[in-house]
Amino acid sequence: MTHTTTDDLHQRYAGHAPAWTPHLEHPVLQSLLRHRSVRRFLSTPLAPGVLDALVAAAQSAPTSSNLQTWSVVVVQEQALRDSLAALAGHQAHIAQAPVLLVWVADLSRALRLAEAAGQAIEAHQYLDTYLMASVDAGLAAQNVVAAAEALGHGTVYIGALRNHAREVARLLALPRGAMPVFGLVVGLPDPAAATAIKPRLAPAQVVHFDRYRVPDDEQEQIADYDAALRAFQRANGLPEVGWTPAVLQRLKNGQSLNGREHLREAVQAAGFELR
Amino acid sequence: MTHTTTDDLHQRYAGHAPAWTPHLEHPVLQSLLRHRSVRRFLSTPLAPGVLDALVAAAQSAPTSSNLQTWSVVVVQEQALRDSLAALAGHQAHIAQAPVLLVWVADLSRALRLAEAAGQAIEAHQYLDTYLMASVDAGLAAQNVVAAAEALGHGTVYIGALRNHAREVARLLALPRGAMPVFGLVVGLPDPAAATAIKPRLAPAQVVHFDRYRVPDDEQEQIADYDAALRAFQRANGLPEVGWTPAVLQRLKNGQSLNGREHLREAVQAAGFELR
Repeated sequence: MTHTTTDDLHQRYAGHAPAWTPHLEHPVLQSLLRHRSVRRFLSTPLAPGVLDALVAAAQSAPTSSNLQTWSVVVVQEQALRDSLAALAGHQAHIAQAPVLLVWVADLSRALRLAEAAGQAIEAHQYLDTYLMASVDAGLAAQNVVAAAEALGHGTVYIGALRNHAREVARLLALPRGAMPVFGLVVGLPDPAAATAIKPRLAPAQVVHFDRYRVPDDEQEQIADYDAALRAFQRANGLPEVGWTPAVLQRLKNGQSLNGREHLREAVQAAGFELR
Repeated sequence: MTHTTTDDLHQRYAGHAPAWTPHLEHPVLQSLLRHRSVRRFLSTPLAPGVLDALVAAAQSAPTSSNLQTWSVVVVQEQALRDSLAALAGHQAHIAQAPVLLVWVADLSRALRLAEAAGQAIEAHQYLDTYLMASVDAGLAAQNVVAAAEALGHGTVYIGALRNHAREVARLLALPRGAMPVFGLVVGLPDPAAATAIKPRLAPAQVVHFDRYRVPDDEQEQIADYDAALRAFQRANGLPEVGWTPAVLQRLKNGQSLNGREHLREAVQAAGFELR
């Protein structure tokens, strides 16, 4: 029990942790600060009750105006996970872990309600509604991450499900007005594969007070972070690319989005005009 | 100590809670399942260290490809909170609580990195990148909700900051490539104002296995939920509107979005083409 929250914070901020006082010690904080993504899983199925608990955590997250405009597809079928793994750039952990949760921005339920009531709705055609539903799916899923980790499980988000969003929607038989936002793999971490807390930017780089102000030392601070991330990558046997080159490569152009440059057409084809 | 997680689940699901077993008891689950939004706050400032802890929780959330494309503006200045409260449909709690966190989809940092490196980036012009940054802001903010509640604070999301998104961006001096996604009020709940766990749709209405399948009894289940929500509203002194009428009204048309029907133009004006 020598491991402390301060140790976790030092890893998160590569040695520059804020002061931590005992009144901030809480199992929830401890669990959140210890997060790391897991990409090697045991194939062990989720224990009885776990999925219900994760869903209850998801449904306990706030949802804009209580609209509950998300759904989740619990993908367990091996062939389907294999197909989705291939569509998401051959991410083996999708096929390996017992469950992939696909989070769906779902206005189809409201459309069915409207039809049953004989009333028309139109607001799902606006960008805001698509965004709201997608963000609400994120809030729900992040509660699942917190709950799953507390119960000893590991998780990793799969944004790459949007690389081929139309094909994913077709495989999961999503109705009109429903769009996959991202996946979330859940399972028991393979104890043979170490994971570590990844360093992030210093708080002063992402936090502003009252008004946005670019930090005077932004480029120097980011150079420090580049070095810290390279050290982390070296220590964890990962390609030593640092941060800036990875960001610039990932955001270079449409092609660097690996298919996600076509998301707009896919969303519109699913029945969201994005007005 | 007679209050149990099963009690919370019964409130969440209006009497239809899934079975709960002792191996699922964990302080994180307990805290997540007990969530309720707070709309009456004390004006007491956050205690020392709390904001740092919340930011550390936010930065510990997963972020797509470690891009960290979000920032947060901690709004404490009273005049600014008053202005933002007015822009968000006169929500008094924004002015009342000590802090409003405005979450920002922030590609401006990457644009500054690119400029400093003498390299062009273009992927921020695609819908996917705007969506990714907004969802990542949601994951970070939801960790703050979990952390704040664990530390005895209350929170409420303010989607209505998008009612006048351009004006909010201007007030907070957001640079090009940065867009407010939503606000999050944080503070100590006013003990004089009761809050309760709001019932949600039954799990079978939002969870699908392997493929999306509209439940055969969807309309009956939603009618039951309407009744449960009306009972909740009656018990809590709220207007007894139920769910279906509220959903159909909120999604009726562009006007029912209270300004958010112009989000697309605001996002494009901020430098996201949404290709």
